[in-house]
Amino acid sequence: MTETPLHDPIALAKALMACPSVTPVDAGAQDLLETWLERLGFEVHRVTFGDVPNLYATRGQGQRLCFAGHTDVVPPGQVDAWTSPPFEPSVEDGMLRGRGASDMKGAIAAFLAAIARAEGTPPLSLLITGDEEGPGLDGTKKMLGWMAEQGYSFDHCLVGEPTSREVLGDMMKVGRRGSMNAIITIEGRQGHVAYPHRAENPMPAAAHIAEALASLDLDGGYEHFQPSNLEVTGWGSAKTAENVIPADAWIRLNVRFNPNWTGETLVAHLETVIGEAAGGAKWSWHPRVSGEAFLNEDPALAGLVTKAVRKVTGRAPELSTSGGTSDARFIAKVSPCVEFGLSGQTMHQVDEQVPAVDVERLTDIYSEIIALYKDGL
Amino acid sequence: MTETPLHDPIALAKALMACPSVTPVDAGAQDLLETWLERLGFEVHRVTFGDVPNLYATRGQGQRLCFAGHTDVVPPGQVDAWTSPPFEPSVEDGMLRGRGASDMKGAIAAFLAAIARAEGTPPLSLLITGDEEGPGLDGTKKMLGWMAEQGYSFDHCLVGEPTSREVLGDMMKVGRRGSMNAIITIEGRQGHVAYPHRAENPMPAAAHIAEALASLDLDGGYEHFQPSNLEVTGWGSAKTAENVIPADAWIRLNVRFNPNWTGETLVAHLETVIGEAAGGAKWSWHPRVSGEAFLNEDPALAGLVTKAVRKVTGRAPELSTSGGTSDARFIAKVSPCVEFGLSGQTMHQVDEQVPAVDVERLTDIYSEIIALYKDGL
Repeated sequence: MTETPLHDPIALAKALMACPSVTPVDAGAQDLLETWLERLGFEVHRVTFGDVPNLYATRGQGQRLCFAGHTDVVPPGQVDAWTSPPFEPSVEDGMLRGRGASDMKGAIAAFLAAIARAEGTPPLSLLITGDEEGPGLDGTKKMLGWMAEQGYSFDHCLVGEPTSREVLGDMMKVGRRGSMNAIITIEGRQGHVAYPHRAENPMPAAAHIAEALASLDLDGGYEHFQPSNLEVTGWGSAKTAENVIPADAWIRLNVRFNPNWTGETLVAHLETVIGEAAGGAKWSWHPRVSGEAFLNEDPALAGLVTKAVRKVTGRAPELSTSGGTSDARFIAKVSPCVEFGLSGQTMHQVDEQVPAVDVERLTDIYSEIIALYKDGL
Repeated sequence: MTETPLHDPIALAKALMACPSVTPVDAGAQDLLETWLERLGFEVHRVTFGDVPNLYATRGQGQRLCFAGHTDVVPPGQVDAWTSPPFEPSVEDGMLRGRGASDMKGAIAAFLAAIARAEGTPPLSLLITGDEEGPGLDGTKKMLGWMAEQGYSFDHCLVGEPTSREVLGDMMKVGRRGSMNAIITIEGRQGHVAYPHRAENPMPAAAHIAEALASLDLDGGYEHFQPSNLEVTGWGSAKTAENVIPADAWIRLNVRFNPNWTGETLVAHLETVIGEAAGGAKWSWHPRVSGEAFLNEDPALAGLVTKAVRKVTGRAPELSTSGGTSDARFIAKVSPCVEFGLSGQTMHQVDEQVPAVDVERLTDIYSEIIALYKDGL
């Protein structure tokens, strides 16, 4: 068996993408990484939490740059709708296609190839999880705890999530909004519509609450952040016959919030809003904050990445905090952290794909980041 | 086999209640009626529409009083919860118990016994359906059409629905509110909550509409009628994952309306209310008017019934239009119509029951009505 050429990011990406590593299954992806990283002289630790495989690899001593990412992918969706099978990666018409091409086996491959090509690097590490697309409970968050116990640390972190929008290099992420989900339940008493005085209809209070939430103005934005945004994402009520007032109703919502709020202040604020809208109605709720808002306050790391991107692509990436959550929300608590990777246009979709040349260019950008970091941040 | 004594309303009621005639099953109930009515000299017509049995019986020529009612009953519900089996009628501690005691086999029995006891009656008829508790499509409504075709008619109608509240005779009904059901659907476009600009959330417009409907003031009432009342009776939205904006949402409502409105004017008014609340959102709805509001404008019939009730019970019934719909909504289109019967406190419930003495007293009241009607209205 020929060894995978470590300087070739397309070969590495295809090898990883051939593993059907739908969360939390690993399907051999981290075995490949372990082999490759050992060939590159890394000390590799495999750590399993629950059924989630994780990997931490280090090389060198001193101020350390960590590359963070994940080997798990989302399910392929409608397999028949793919142009080629989702776990049989191919390059056709210049496009690297297959589940994980963009999110984010392509970026892992690029970072490994950048290391293989380098003639000398600063101290590096890789923090790889198999639970970024899933609940995220047994992945990066627990790995950071394990690292603290074991005495492993890094000084800066580059997360390889797909951050580019239209073309490679047009955007990097320097923070992320926080996210909160909640379900509000309004209780009444069932009864026949012809005799509403014998029942207690929960719907009027529920309508007041839904209206108050849907029209809520949380803030006007924050440096690098959009205004915080609340979406009512659904509602329901007790199933009843047509002429029956239901016993209860519920409203579901999600908030993406900027650093004007913490999960705690947001929960307190919404509790006031809901309480006022509810009037005297009996209500309860279950808010769950799945990530706090964060902003990378250290301009040096963002500046270094910008310099590298500009050198390779000729464009300066927009510093953004938009989009969904990522493991950067955990990492930002322990070190400065930016996210830069391929275009996310087809992530999670059928026919996930990226231009093969972008994987090459991303390798160049990561090489440049490694070289600049070696020169000192 | 001993013939059922026709002058004994309890015996008649028990015989009818022993037939498990859950809509549209007849289970022999109308066979009993046919036998009894023929013994009383009535000309009996059995007319089936769809799977619904109906019966029309007449006796005598001239100004005619019709008694209207139904032999079908609602399902027994949780049979185990009954003190005695729902279709094994019994009199215990003075209570006639079993499905249909109140709604409304007891009243049919009382009217038959009143006829049997009378020494001479005015021209009478009975209009009995097996589809009052069900969809009501193949019952009284079609029978009235059949009667018109056949040249059968009556001049006044007494509907034997349970109208008394606390004690026999405290209430009669001289009209009923109309009823309208509707489902409103608001359409949007599904998308991820982190990127609301790529989706179109139907929930804000839906919340506006729900709020507008729940707080709507339709009118201040009408002679003998409560204010028209709208109840939002439920809502829902497309099932999605937690972080997804749904493609659509729906709201369900019921309106009970007084003669300030017709179904048509009400639909037009709500269409304006919903349209304004929807803003630019795409919405559609399916309103269904299941009955128009009506009021018995003829005071003579109500006066006659009041006189009979007062003579037997000592109290004058309140003239009401409250509660759910009944077949009186169809009959009121062809003749003056009032409703008077037993107490409805346990109708549709487990252990449906009425005081046996009330069935006797109702027989006396119906006898009085027949006698007064014979004297001329």
